[in-house]
Amino acid sequence: MTLFFRNCKVLPMTAAAGEPNCFDGYVGVEGRRIALVTADAAAAEAWRAAHAGAREIDGRGGILMPGLVNTHCHMAMTLQRSYADDMALMEWLNDHIWPFEARQTDDDIRVGALLGAAEMLLGGVTSVVDMYWSEAAVFDAVDRAGMRALLCASYLDTRLEAFESDLPALVEKCEGSSRIRAGLAPHAAYTCSAENLRRGMEACRRYGIPMTTHIAETLDEVRMIRERYGATPVEYLDSLGVLDGGLIAAHCVHLTDGDRRILRERGVHVAHCPTSNMKIASGVAPIERLRTEGVNCTVGTDGPSSNNDLDMWEEMRNASFLQKVTTMDPCAVPAYELLRMATVCGAAAIGHAGELGVVKEGALADLVLLSTQRPYYHPQHDVVANVAYCAKAADVDTVVVDGEVVVDGGRLSTVDLPSLYARAGAAVRRIAGEL
Amino acid sequence: MTLFFRNCKVLPMTAAAGEPNCFDGYVGVEGRRIALVTADAAAAEAWRAAHAGAREIDGRGGILMPGLVNTHCHMAMTLQRSYADDMALMEWLNDHIWPFEARQTDDDIRVGALLGAAEMLLGGVTSVVDMYWSEAAVFDAVDRAGMRALLCASYLDTRLEAFESDLPALVEKCEGSSRIRAGLAPHAAYTCSAENLRRGMEACRRYGIPMTTHIAETLDEVRMIRERYGATPVEYLDSLGVLDGGLIAAHCVHLTDGDRRILRERGVHVAHCPTSNMKIASGVAPIERLRTEGVNCTVGTDGPSSNNDLDMWEEMRNASFLQKVTTMDPCAVPAYELLRMATVCGAAAIGHAGELGVVKEGALADLVLLSTQRPYYHPQHDVVANVAYCAKAADVDTVVVDGEVVVDGGRLSTVDLPSLYARAGAAVRRIAGEL
Repeated sequence: MTLFFRNCKVLPMTAAAGEPNCFDGYVGVEGRRIALVTADAAAAEAWRAAHAGAREIDGRGGILMPGLVNTHCHMAMTLQRSYADDMALMEWLNDHIWPFEARQTDDDIRVGALLGAAEMLLGGVTSVVDMYWSEAAVFDAVDRAGMRALLCASYLDTRLEAFESDLPALVEKCEGSSRIRAGLAPHAAYTCSAENLRRGMEACRRYGIPMTTHIAETLDEVRMIRERYGATPVEYLDSLGVLDGGLIAAHCVHLTDGDRRILRERGVHVAHCPTSNMKIASGVAPIERLRTEGVNCTVGTDGPSSNNDLDMWEEMRNASFLQKVTTMDPCAVPAYELLRMATVCGAAAIGHAGELGVVKEGALADLVLLSTQRPYYHPQHDVVANVAYCAKAADVDTVVVDGEVVVDGGRLSTVDLPSLYARAGAAVRRIAGEL
Repeated sequence: MTLFFRNCKVLPMTAAAGEPNCFDGYVGVEGRRIALVTADAAAAEAWRAAHAGAREIDGRGGILMPGLVNTHCHMAMTLQRSYADDMALMEWLNDHIWPFEARQTDDDIRVGALLGAAEMLLGGVTSVVDMYWSEAAVFDAVDRAGMRALLCASYLDTRLEAFESDLPALVEKCEGSSRIRAGLAPHAAYTCSAENLRRGMEACRRYGIPMTTHIAETLDEVRMIRERYGATPVEYLDSLGVLDGGLIAAHCVHLTDGDRRILRERGVHVAHCPTSNMKIASGVAPIERLRTEGVNCTVGTDGPSSNNDLDMWEEMRNASFLQKVTTMDPCAVPAYELLRMATVCGAAAIGHAGELGVVKEGALADLVLLSTQRPYYHPQHDVVANVAYCAKAADVDTVVVDGEVVVDGGRLSTVDLPSLYARAGAAVRRIAGEL
């Protein structure tokens, strides 16, 4: 598709940390990539004239920026949204989440994942890292919705089907996709034996795919690993070699000084999920320290059963404000750095450094146009702070993924929502009937 | 106006704590009050037939609930939204906020307050407690926007004009209003002498109006009061009698066990402003303890220069999630209690217990209809948790204040937004030019 955006404030996220740039400008898209980024009206007009069939999109003074990257999600868990809130973790898992999950079919997972993809695209999230069972079914949903994703087949000691069925099926499906890549996701150090973690690393090498896992999410996990292995989760996983090769580590809430150093030295990407950490009372990750020490920190929503939505704008604000209040430093995670975490840094975590998470010529065309028609964008003293601290999912007017317009005037063009809601409702009624 | 809502899920907020009720039903409004709340289709049809001229509003399966009550705001500070973010408190105030404020005219305050009222109404906030200079100018904005408010004329030792000009003018204006009431707001114990606090109490008695003030917002404040008076801010204000008479106390972040007991015994209403407390790194108020000990805890956005918007839905989530993570208890401030804080408890704080913050026959007609068309309302396991943990300002379809429809199909009917944005932009450009 060929697209020409005019009448926009462009927030390209290409400037170095602490030096935001933003300008009134024009952006052109040809095929899968950004072909034009300019503030020069004459250059823009020349490009438009040379691309006669281009669809012209009037930004009406809105903000054009890179699509957001959600680096930790369990999309299909939309089916468990508000299914069991406000309870202790083990009661929540044992009595509610796990019995529900045990009754889910691949079709249910497909419906739940499509609901998650729809919500994320409508909210300006163009890339997601997902971790769940039956990722081959999640592939179908993401493919249909038109989203970019790194789908990671999950396993634990008591559920190893990923190796036999899910991962091979997922890898095969991904071969034909320009947007979707496969990955592997051992659940965590306390649910996967050393043998199964090694088996996972071996599979990653064989397929040439990345890995993600949960690390140091709760104090209970840290205690268990220390009792079993006499080490912190980070130290233990490092001793096995799991932290090498660009691991995406979700949570990283409870870390020692040594853990932070190891994460930095191994080049681990941290997926910070503040809303989930707050809501299920896991704790506060030391993101400001990690970030300033040089660890690549990114933002994830976690699954919608512990959030309860997939809103990256609220997630970003939690990522900043929770750090400010717990460090008692109002300068912690400032606005532009926060936006970098959700764009540039997220892109690096999923292996697309410099080609996603930025608006620049040659980069992949994953774009979001925010409408600034709501009162909280006015007056405009500082566009970066406006976006970081005020922007809402509902302001998303246009979303482009891989050069295709998937949200158009605030409407998702790839999925019929009312029929999807009906299917999701039917799925949860059937599951509830079986419980 | 006569209104008839059908095809709604009614969330009346009338049930006791911990026992939410929600039903498919009908609501009728006659004049300023709610005249019908029923789940009985025949009774609803009879009411509709008896009110032939009633405007019928199809809720399309949306959620009809009480309007939200924002118990602490400085509306006019929309003009300073994103004017100065991510900096230390005293630098922020001394070098940015105060010089900017010193150049504001009453017209600027009118424009800023109207922008704040527009944002709040569009987001389902029907009542606000405001504290600022020139509240008589804020009155004009709130009156025009069609909002309900308790407007509190602010003063401190170096700025006592409230007593001579603002308060008498405000009280006079409020005499003719069914929606707007006057109050008085000494800024804080560290900026108002004992003499000026007593003068404020005397003015409140004379006019028969309530009082609000900031209490124990920062550690610096607590230290200053202890050095000057050898007491905590709560103890000191209590010794003067300031806490009697239904005071609305904003923040209450840094409290001793004794402070919490005093607040409970005096019947003080706490306005919890978690986003501001997080963003400017004030600290975490002990809301779960206050609430469970019997203090009336409510929710406020604080001003938009420390938030940076007036979004009560995000504010609510911060009020719950910040308590969960800091107490390490996922059961803290559960969903229904959170909704009560922003409705029932807020209504009690502004002197409307039982007649605002609830949907029941005889209550004042301040209503919000939420559209549930967005993915995060699906599937629907639990409407209360959906609203508490997922609802967004942008879902607000219809808002009724004092029986009048002020937001209709998501559009504000009382204010022309584009011209308001132009006026706000012109105001801040003029002020910037003077700085």
